[in-house]
Amino acid sequence: MEKRKIRVIQYGLGPIGLGTTKLLLTKPDMEIVGAVEIAKEMVGKDLGEILGMKALGVHVTDNAERLFAKVQADVVVHTAGSRLKRVAGQIEEILRGGKNIVSSAEELLFATPENVEAAAKIDKLAREKGVTVLGTGVNPGFVMDALPLALTGVCQEVREVHVERVVDAGTRRYPLQRKIGAGMTPELFREKVAEKAMGHVGLRESLYLIADRLHFILDDVRETVEPVIAEKPLKTDYFELKPGDVAGIRNIGEGFRKGKKIVTLDLRMYIGAENPHDSIRIVGTPDLRLRIEGGVAGDQATAAILVNSIPSVIAAAPGLVTVKDLPAPWCHQA
Amino acid sequence: MEKRKIRVIQYGLGPIGLGTTKLLLTKPDMEIVGAVEIAKEMVGKDLGEILGMKALGVHVTDNAERLFAKVQADVVVHTAGSRLKRVAGQIEEILRGGKNIVSSAEELLFATPENVEAAAKIDKLAREKGVTVLGTGVNPGFVMDALPLALTGVCQEVREVHVERVVDAGTRRYPLQRKIGAGMTPELFREKVAEKAMGHVGLRESLYLIADRLHFILDDVRETVEPVIAEKPLKTDYFELKPGDVAGIRNIGEGFRKGKKIVTLDLRMYIGAENPHDSIRIVGTPDLRLRIEGGVAGDQATAAILVNSIPSVIAAAPGLVTVKDLPAPWCHQA
Repeated sequence: MEKRKIRVIQYGLGPIGLGTTKLLLTKPDMEIVGAVEIAKEMVGKDLGEILGMKALGVHVTDNAERLFAKVQADVVVHTAGSRLKRVAGQIEEILRGGKNIVSSAEELLFATPENVEAAAKIDKLAREKGVTVLGTGVNPGFVMDALPLALTGVCQEVREVHVERVVDAGTRRYPLQRKIGAGMTPELFREKVAEKAMGHVGLRESLYLIADRLHFILDDVRETVEPVIAEKPLKTDYFELKPGDVAGIRNIGEGFRKGKKIVTLDLRMYIGAENPHDSIRIVGTPDLRLRIEGGVAGDQATAAILVNSIPSVIAAAPGLVTVKDLPAPWCHQA
Repeated sequence: MEKRKIRVIQYGLGPIGLGTTKLLLTKPDMEIVGAVEIAKEMVGKDLGEILGMKALGVHVTDNAERLFAKVQADVVVHTAGSRLKRVAGQIEEILRGGKNIVSSAEELLFATPENVEAAAKIDKLAREKGVTVLGTGVNPGFVMDALPLALTGVCQEVREVHVERVVDAGTRRYPLQRKIGAGMTPELFREKVAEKAMGHVGLRESLYLIADRLHFILDDVRETVEPVIAEKPLKTDYFELKPGDVAGIRNIGEGFRKGKKIVTLDLRMYIGAENPHDSIRIVGTPDLRLRIEGGVAGDQATAAILVNSIPSVIAAAPGLVTVKDLPAPWCHQA
């Protein structure tokens, strides 16, 4: 008897959602049984046609509640926002529909102090409905949290954790280049930072997850968002930068204990970054230094980790869980 | 109310077992409630005294069955052998005593074709008794299997996995230097290889675990064990080597599919190894190259991963599980 396929609803059809959709279509033991998106130009269309492929018989709807009532599914892949404030309503609607969730929402990774209540509400609803919610991705979800924590698995003691991620944004898609402020003046960039309209979402979540798991009691947590300024003319498929323009962002999260910096998450994403890489330094017994040359490629990897996390999320006990509560995903190949 | 401590029995008091014991004593939420060892010179002695510390009130016994009947414990840390043939009786006795097990036995990591029956027997008994058995360590258990698999979590597809581990055995303890053949003549080394008395245990297990999780159907698996020959005079705390003597071992495990090598595990442990490191190369979408400079220090790390795995093993569903069935351990600090 052939095993039943894993039935997936794709919720959100932005770049990450479309990437996940394409990847799901390559997995012989998974099938897409529904798609949710509010963008008017997609509603009612066939998902395959949106991707420029043959029709899949799955039509995009903006009525999630009705879809959940009508369609049996094992899991919803949710890629429709970063902030808990923005996505909590969507997550709760999916849970009321009785579906497991793998979400790319950065703030779902871990409940930082300001999100404890919203996370508790999601956790309670998930338990009532007997389903599991996981927030994951490459960052947060892997490079700056799950991977350094996995490294500490071979440590007798850990005193400090420092992670550096340098991404050459010049090789990435347009929305990302825009998001990091490429082409802005430094003044505009700083104004946007002051309005909290700038900066990678998820650094706080990674930092608090690390501190929680290692029982690091932090007495100060600091975050800074600074522009990286172009030093020479730079050109991408989308932008031409003059020296003095903003080339991208440097976002640092730091955790302190008694004045000593014991966690650093240093994220630099800018056009023209040289020697892109991810590196992790664990100060402990033993010390460890790890480097991923070139770094983990963002968009391919995000779709991958969302899809690869599906089997564990389906198998997991109910509730809002973290990437460190489940087996670390591996590439799902049937 | 204070949470009850995790009660641990240490089974096996060789170098790894003593290392684990010392580490357990530093964990405020764990306590050692029993110790098993057959070496006559230890039986009856206080565990603390064996470690050169103050008495702990835990006396070493060679009667495991009686200990399990008498003492309540949450888990047994088993460090008393590599081969399933040798340890299966011990594992089964611990299971009949109703205890969870974290074991350093290399062949417990994953059931290779030749060990399927013995593993099934252990799995059945563990389920009957409602307890969990895990085989883990640094290698196998982390560097050449769990870590590369965790890296593939950000891959859409994986076509090849190649791991290289180079250890400078000159910095390691005497039994390890002996085990890798340091100081032997190449002739004696090759005789020992022919008798299967030489070679790292666990490479096959790592290889089969990787293939299983990635659904790599291998049509050929090859293992080679070769001496690394000293090219110049070398000296450790225990050995003096002349050029031409054996400095250590190179052990390679390879998995092939249609004539193409798709898995390589290349382990080199020898005195005088330059630039020790662990490196992982994933050929897939995306490609990934990871390097741990200096490598993961063997003995400290082995004790660490055994102890760090305890909480997940206690929480896990019954049966014989693998490192990829449980959350990847992190440094347990209370």
